[in-house]
Amino acid sequence: MTVQESQAEELLHRFRQGDVRALARALTLVESGHPVGQELLKRLRGQARAKVVGITGSPGAGKSTLTDRLILEARKRGERVGVLAVDPSSPFTGGAILGDRIRMMRHHQDPGVYIRSLASRGALGGLAGATVAALALLETFGFDRIFVETVGVGQSEVDIARVADTTLLVLTPAAGDAVQAFKAGVMEIADLFAVNKFDLPGGERIIQELKSALELAPPRPGGWHPPIYPTVAATGEGVEALFEGLEAHYQHLVAHGLLEAHRLERARFEVESVIQEWGRKRTQGAGDLVARVARGELSPEEAALALLDPKARP
Amino acid sequence: MTVQESQAEELLHRFRQGDVRALARALTLVESGHPVGQELLKRLRGQARAKVVGITGSPGAGKSTLTDRLILEARKRGERVGVLAVDPSSPFTGGAILGDRIRMMRHHQDPGVYIRSLASRGALGGLAGATVAALALLETFGFDRIFVETVGVGQSEVDIARVADTTLLVLTPAAGDAVQAFKAGVMEIADLFAVNKFDLPGGERIIQELKSALELAPPRPGGWHPPIYPTVAATGEGVEALFEGLEAHYQHLVAHGLLEAHRLERARFEVESVIQEWGRKRTQGAGDLVARVARGELSPEEAALALLDPKARP
Repeated sequence: MTVQESQAEELLHRFRQGDVRALARALTLVESGHPVGQELLKRLRGQARAKVVGITGSPGAGKSTLTDRLILEARKRGERVGVLAVDPSSPFTGGAILGDRIRMMRHHQDPGVYIRSLASRGALGGLAGATVAALALLETFGFDRIFVETVGVGQSEVDIARVADTTLLVLTPAAGDAVQAFKAGVMEIADLFAVNKFDLPGGERIIQELKSALELAPPRPGGWHPPIYPTVAATGEGVEALFEGLEAHYQHLVAHGLLEAHRLERARFEVESVIQEWGRKRTQGAGDLVARVARGELSPEEAALALLDPKARP
Repeated sequence: MTVQESQAEELLHRFRQGDVRALARALTLVESGHPVGQELLKRLRGQARAKVVGITGSPGAGKSTLTDRLILEARKRGERVGVLAVDPSSPFTGGAILGDRIRMMRHHQDPGVYIRSLASRGALGGLAGATVAALALLETFGFDRIFVETVGVGQSEVDIARVADTTLLVLTPAAGDAVQAFKAGVMEIADLFAVNKFDLPGGERIIQELKSALELAPPRPGGWHPPIYPTVAATGEGVEALFEGLEAHYQHLVAHGLLEAHRLERARFEVESVIQEWGRKRTQGAGDLVARVARGELSPEEAALALLDPKARP
């Protein structure tokens, strides 16, 4: 047994006993790409299943406050809840997001809730491979439901839909929010919509616009019709109905045998992410090849081939 | 000489004579990944240089109208202009974008302007590899300046900054536009800002917000300070100053020897894109491997290794 294997063994033992500190340690190891984390994941893979809910939407839509309320609903029903809050890594965003997240901290007193913040790959990048690995870990720890909250800027919204069982898009009556959703093609991704801050003017109009747009949208697997929920996360209004909607979507997946397809799509996403990450790293380390591409001596395809197969290096 | 080589030879001959139909044909071949397109690119690579300006910003910011005006400015100065308009491929966006683009069509009468629309990879995907290949072709055709207009939804904004010499971010006084820019980390990417639709209320406020945010931003190469231009694309107001700003940025790159670094970054992006595309295709075609990852029998890393190196297939 190698040192890594025996370290993984010991951590695994505590992890399986439900030791939250072992979970925290395992998440750190996985996030940093440490071999012990890899070993741990390998042993835990395919062992458990939680309901995974992705929560996305534009900045300022109130996603964190809504997640906070959804945690309460889940706890009322006796569920154990894990939360992954994915932050973009830009220095410009730190402050505001941290402020929202602090509200969720009250759950830290509750042993039935575990909250973890993760940095995403880049300021605008999609979900990092590490996020999906962290999610895989959380799933095997015995949570009933896991919320993955991402700041919705483009790619991460598409990624979350590939990773989660259920994807919730949070909008507000703010000008431009609906337009943004339609233009960005997010309409095709969300399983449910929350029109949050519904106490602001314009909420009904957004609902009508969403309804019209959804009538034109392509049909969903199993004939699912994405419902729209007005919510006021600050007061909790509408959150119970929204939670029931999340549960209804999950039951729809089960009833129509669609869960398996979701899990396959997530695995596909994981493999693609690994290849993309390798491509990025190897390209960063190949200054000479890149310079030859820039000078037109080599096509990008030839350089890619050389990077992926050392024996074919031209 | 293979059939492909002789076809490429004939097309190359007409391309070099400045035949616009040969350019159009070549772009189609490159966009579809046809071998003759590959052959053509190989022969033309590294031969010419245009000033490449990326134009991005949220949907509805008036990017197409502004591009239309910038084309006029370039033509006033006797420049030959190429335009790549990258459309997201979502069915929900087609209409609105097409409408804006029609305005640009008036330039089709002008032999000094060539406009081409390209579909991006996915509804929310970044710039497709095909877009960069099309750009490489345009550059060798003899244009003095090339505008690449992308609908700014996350990843494509980051991508455009890696591909263009100069990146222009178009904002409007609309609520949420500035916030969006700060949160998404786009501040760090743009070389110039246009606050378009400046005749609407709130323009001055956005400029002040941008200025404050830029004071906190990390320093740029060569000490560049991103300028902010108020514009009204509909009337052309402020567009001449903006055009001069684009030119000033290019001259800054030249004066500080930064162009080369930009070209290397673009080459790096091209190689990464090829690897990412291969990863996606191979993963799509590997149902069995993906199923084993989903069942936890194989880690994503093991599956990726197997996909990239057939000899290592477990």
